[in-house]
Amino acid sequence: MRFVFGLAAVALAACQSPAGVSAIPAAPPGNTPSIPEVVAASKPEEWRKLDPANTLYMDFPNGRVIIELAPQFAPNHVANIKALSREGFFVNGGVTRVQDNFVTQWAQAAEPLRAPKVGVEKLNAEFTLPRSAPVSFNVLPDPDTFADEVGFSDGFYAARDKDRVWLAHCYGMVGAGRDSDENSGGGTELYTIIGQSPRALDRQLTVVGKVVQGMEILAAFPRGTGDAGFYKTPAEYHRYADMKIAADLPESQRTNLEEMRTDSASFQTLVNARRWRKDGFYTKPVGRIGLCNITVPVRAAK
Amino acid sequence: MRFVFGLAAVALAACQSPAGVSAIPAAPPGNTPSIPEVVAASKPEEWRKLDPANTLYMDFPNGRVIIELAPQFAPNHVANIKALSREGFFVNGGVTRVQDNFVTQWAQAAEPLRAPKVGVEKLNAEFTLPRSAPVSFNVLPDPDTFADEVGFSDGFYAARDKDRVWLAHCYGMVGAGRDSDENSGGGTELYTIIGQSPRALDRQLTVVGKVVQGMEILAAFPRGTGDAGFYKTPAEYHRYADMKIAADLPESQRTNLEEMRTDSASFQTLVNARRWRKDGFYTKPVGRIGLCNITVPVRAAK
Repeated sequence: MRFVFGLAAVALAACQSPAGVSAIPAAPPGNTPSIPEVVAASKPEEWRKLDPANTLYMDFPNGRVIIELAPQFAPNHVANIKALSREGFFVNGGVTRVQDNFVTQWAQAAEPLRAPKVGVEKLNAEFTLPRSAPVSFNVLPDPDTFADEVGFSDGFYAARDKDRVWLAHCYGMVGAGRDSDENSGGGTELYTIIGQSPRALDRQLTVVGKVVQGMEILAAFPRGTGDAGFYKTPAEYHRYADMKIAADLPESQRTNLEEMRTDSASFQTLVNARRWRKDGFYTKPVGRIGLCNITVPVRAAK
Repeated sequence: MRFVFGLAAVALAACQSPAGVSAIPAAPPGNTPSIPEVVAASKPEEWRKLDPANTLYMDFPNGRVIIELAPQFAPNHVANIKALSREGFFVNGGVTRVQDNFVTQWAQAAEPLRAPKVGVEKLNAEFTLPRSAPVSFNVLPDPDTFADEVGFSDGFYAARDKDRVWLAHCYGMVGAGRDSDENSGGGTELYTIIGQSPRALDRQLTVVGKVVQGMEILAAFPRGTGDAGFYKTPAEYHRYADMKIAADLPESQRTNLEEMRTDSASFQTLVNARRWRKDGFYTKPVGRIGLCNITVPVRAAK
């Protein structure tokens, strides 16, 4: 028996049985609290500071995009992205592709592409981990279309079946582009999800992290008019100065953020408040919530 | 017994039983066809021309947005939107709100707002219809997080339970904004979904149609920096010339589109190809598909 969000969770089959549905926590009495109210009532220990060694900054003219890396799921890709950053591979980079309701993708902006020197071009895929891998997993009891179980692993959207665990392609998740060869990605080109979450990508690409600040920048570029949303010319690229590791910058240049712990009681309260949302506007609670409809609160570190 | 996508469908409970899952069609042999391949192989009678009387155009400087209305689900709102269009209510309108991963909303752009003269400001809610309403419903056998059953009704994303049927808030669906009062919407302000589909809105707002062309315009505006993504000043609004009914324009100014029928064999083939997608890039078929992950093909009318 494992405890999840304060309830004994029932193992989910490919789709939940009615018994599984009964594991969904009951509606709270009265109106549900808003996210700011849940955040205000949370305790300091329910927050986790982002690790500067696993945080990336991309500075665009209109703001900073911040990405939290997930070395626990993609250790080789994360190490390679960091090596690429340190060798200057991403200096004067560009958003090269924006496909509506799918992805924004970025890479080097200059042709011909500079080859990596310390980092590498290609790595073996890190699509999934064995189910027994030592990663956390807080199960969401709500039914999911695509996976046996979904939930959160240290703030990241995640899914699993009886054999494997993986990061899920929800809005804002970041992955490594690849060619047809599964082992052709490496982190030289990255993408994030900007529309309805294309969960069919799960287990087919290496997910390396998620955007914790700046989706309003990455999701609002004009869509590319070439095939698959690629811009037709480098002149259309949206330039960023570099993709830097936070720990490599002086403290004065860092943006120190903290994220609500997805294994905390306050996060459980937040999820259940959204699941049963009832307030002046929402009057008909659904009683279920989708994995990708949950946003993990992020704020300036205290 | 009703036939759905060529298979006897099993009634779905709040979440599908394993018996329900078995109603998912089997994987096609070999690689799955691409959407262009399915479209190329379809028959003319598997397409439905959009009705100019229920099609709206919004012309932005960078292109035309086309909306198909759903009078079968929201007859009073659709009639009112058409009356508002005809009285010039939307002339020189503007996108007033873009909230990232949620909605783009448009209305009049000038303050003070002009009151409707023929159309009205407020209508009673048209959130759902009785389950017995004479609307088509092609059930998708895949599990859904939010509703007992999901599927398509004449090309529109739809859901139902034992009592009611309604249009679902998938990417690109269009609804009527309202205040806290459920009967305060009417169509003077409209919104479309631009991110992960917020299905918790289902049954709480009147859905009036969907965008069939131009989402790449509506989804790419800079996000508003005011509360809930509203622009802080009218100077930030993105102007459109008018919102016109196609039938009210001379034929030379119309964009004549047709949509693949969601009750056709080709659509069934398309959905199953995406459910079991297998090609040079996708090698691990999921065997399930989400309602809001399906895009209904639209093309120039032949």
